[in-house]
Amino acid sequence: MVPHLVTALTGPTNELEQRVLDSMPAIERWFRLEWMEHTPPFYSSVDIRNAGFKLAPVDTNLYPGGWNNLTPEMLPLAVQAAMAAIEKICPEAKNLLVIPENNTRSTFYLSNVLQLKRIFHMAGLNVRIGSISPDIKKPTQVTLPTGETIVLEPVVRSKRRLGLKDFDPCTILMNNDLSAGPPGILEDLHEQYLLPPLHAGWSVRRKSRHFKSYEEVAKRFGKMLGIDSWLINPLFNSCGQLDFNEAHGLDCLTTNVDALLAKIRKKYKEYGINEKPFVVVKADNGTHGMGIMTVRDVKDLADIGSRTKSRMAVDQDGRPVSEVIIQEGVLTAERINEAVAEPVVYMMDRYVVGGFYRVHAERGDDENLNAPGAHFVPLAFSESTRLPQPGQKPGASAPNRFYMYGVIGRLAMLAASYELEATDPEAEVYE
Amino acid sequence: MVPHLVTALTGPTNELEQRVLDSMPAIERWFRLEWMEHTPPFYSSVDIRNAGFKLAPVDTNLYPGGWNNLTPEMLPLAVQAAMAAIEKICPEAKNLLVIPENNTRSTFYLSNVLQLKRIFHMAGLNVRIGSISPDIKKPTQVTLPTGETIVLEPVVRSKRRLGLKDFDPCTILMNNDLSAGPPGILEDLHEQYLLPPLHAGWSVRRKSRHFKSYEEVAKRFGKMLGIDSWLINPLFNSCGQLDFNEAHGLDCLTTNVDALLAKIRKKYKEYGINEKPFVVVKADNGTHGMGIMTVRDVKDLADIGSRTKSRMAVDQDGRPVSEVIIQEGVLTAERINEAVAEPVVYMMDRYVVGGFYRVHAERGDDENLNAPGAHFVPLAFSESTRLPQPGQKPGASAPNRFYMYGVIGRLAMLAASYELEATDPEAEVYE
Repeated sequence: MVPHLVTALTGPTNELEQRVLDSMPAIERWFRLEWMEHTPPFYSSVDIRNAGFKLAPVDTNLYPGGWNNLTPEMLPLAVQAAMAAIEKICPEAKNLLVIPENNTRSTFYLSNVLQLKRIFHMAGLNVRIGSISPDIKKPTQVTLPTGETIVLEPVVRSKRRLGLKDFDPCTILMNNDLSAGPPGILEDLHEQYLLPPLHAGWSVRRKSRHFKSYEEVAKRFGKMLGIDSWLINPLFNSCGQLDFNEAHGLDCLTTNVDALLAKIRKKYKEYGINEKPFVVVKADNGTHGMGIMTVRDVKDLADIGSRTKSRMAVDQDGRPVSEVIIQEGVLTAERINEAVAEPVVYMMDRYVVGGFYRVHAERGDDENLNAPGAHFVPLAFSESTRLPQPGQKPGASAPNRFYMYGVIGRLAMLAASYELEATDPEAEVYE
Repeated sequence: MVPHLVTALTGPTNELEQRVLDSMPAIERWFRLEWMEHTPPFYSSVDIRNAGFKLAPVDTNLYPGGWNNLTPEMLPLAVQAAMAAIEKICPEAKNLLVIPENNTRSTFYLSNVLQLKRIFHMAGLNVRIGSISPDIKKPTQVTLPTGETIVLEPVVRSKRRLGLKDFDPCTILMNNDLSAGPPGILEDLHEQYLLPPLHAGWSVRRKSRHFKSYEEVAKRFGKMLGIDSWLINPLFNSCGQLDFNEAHGLDCLTTNVDALLAKIRKKYKEYGINEKPFVVVKADNGTHGMGIMTVRDVKDLADIGSRTKSRMAVDQDGRPVSEVIIQEGVLTAERINEAVAEPVVYMMDRYVVGGFYRVHAERGDDENLNAPGAHFVPLAFSESTRLPQPGQKPGASAPNRFYMYGVIGRLAMLAASYELEATDPEAEVYE
């Protein structure tokens, strides 16, 4: 099924697409040189919004779920990239322990874990799933809707190593974003490779730091391509120490929302864009699309209903939100059967291995789509993101569109690499 | 189209397949550790023969043609592997010059060159085709049967660099196996990467040296798997200084053919194989399947007709054959629509990126299939060689069969890596 791209024939994105295609050799060389100096995250996924006039990443996930959404055709690419990643980090690896999210009731999420297991098994590793959830006290088999089964085993911690009963992995792959902070059981594992490192978890990461890195990356990339980096970069401000339950704590938010809306308005005017600017307010260290608010006018903030407030006041683990990022809202102009859609790009090591559209029939084009709901339908890209077709009319070719998404995804991945270097507690400091 | 594998349900190959699948993590780890110490050839293809009771490589090509035979599904894998190869060898590369065979009349061969161009362009390089043939004096456009066009340009040599008019490549990819020896125009290019290196050409390479390396590799691999390495290793002898036109020069050949047939007979007896042993005599440094002779009995050598003699006496460039390799003949039990078929595995850097069956309806199961003829039908593997399916009944799954072929292909590639290290004229020697 080939998604029909309604943005296909309109707007400056086509100009950007053409520029990206024409510069392909320069872009790939630029990435190669960057990866000589920087280490890509082990794996990642990037949510992208394509407004037609602007294309930008809005979220970069370093513990990507949703691998089950990729097409079977993309599996060999993921396996090959996994081989490259393993080879670079731990060539002597035999056993890989995958640690999933603690909430293991969702068979959709468990299908993702099974897919990861499959990918790394095909890359040549013995793979088992070890849960750090206190609920998993013995090996627990879950049957998925496809009839496949997955076994979650309780982890066993010794003084220096983490493993399972009769399974001593040299590498531990986290698919658990540690929103609640790294549990003690994961600390002081100096003999094993822990991927990604603990400081990639949301107790250390801040979206504002990521987008600060992304801004730098986008500026350098924009300079190379000869484009205004705003076309690929979402503006943002941030506020620390906010309490949604205390009215006076909203001052910082109001000021920053107002300032950001003014900046966007100016940019829209510069480009002759007849859309209403909006910003998205979200927890600076959260994930899963909880605690997200779309704001079109500062007046809206005064009118925040108590329901929204209480939704914003705690993140998905029930912890109070105190730091927020205020991000330029990017409309999504992609539609699939009239439902609003946004592309998600998946990467393993430095390689784009696939992607899909996140589709939400009940949401608007200025709303967060990463939300629960029966109408959430991930739709895999029908073709590889690695096969651009030069010579095609801009906007007329899905592969070329996917290639451009892959470039933006990799820019966000590069920003994450910068970010992780800056926050590495074990980094050597040269003064 | 899924090729029907008639070997699917018979013979020890299924046992080998099961052993290979069960040992997948150990095998992949073994390769990873090998590639830490050794450099894979830039690209390669390996002809494999599967006799049902035995599976072995019979030819390893370091200037592989036939890339156009791979399926479109395999293209993303080839592109990703090309990115990995370029990144490792010459990350700063922008321009790539591909040098094809001098005989450029075959549109089938030119389709292969165009496919290579496509792969490296998608990997992010500017690619042009430079011919070193004296026949190409100006840019020459050739239209292929598909309607696509390819432009061959004459190379321009300066004192230190090779390029085209207005095109200065930092990397030169040879798809020309230099059977006639490296032309002066390729020598002393110390500023550019020449891939593969000149000593990978047939003026330096010897099949006997390759299969000596392969024997070592197969022994170590066999030991790891707990199998007799003969199951994956074709026995061989070699003769230097042979002249097919002088009867007395055949003494060495007769002695060696006899000795090798006796060795094979012994092995067949050991395994209870009721087939007639045979050997294949071929030029030790040739390619393209010319000058190849199947011998079932030393008496055959006395009866060699003058036509065979004159066919054997010169290689495809008309140079006299003086060194030969006498290789254990491996039957091919693969059939596609009743025609004899042999698998060919394609690799880029250390990755298996695809493969196909070479099919020849007019040849027997003990004959060379790499021969001209209207009935030569390459048939792409329908599935990735990277996606084994554990749990499938041995022999019942094409992906598992392909995975095993990919393992054998990589063993031959590893042997080529050893071989190139041993013959590297610039290698440092430690005494």
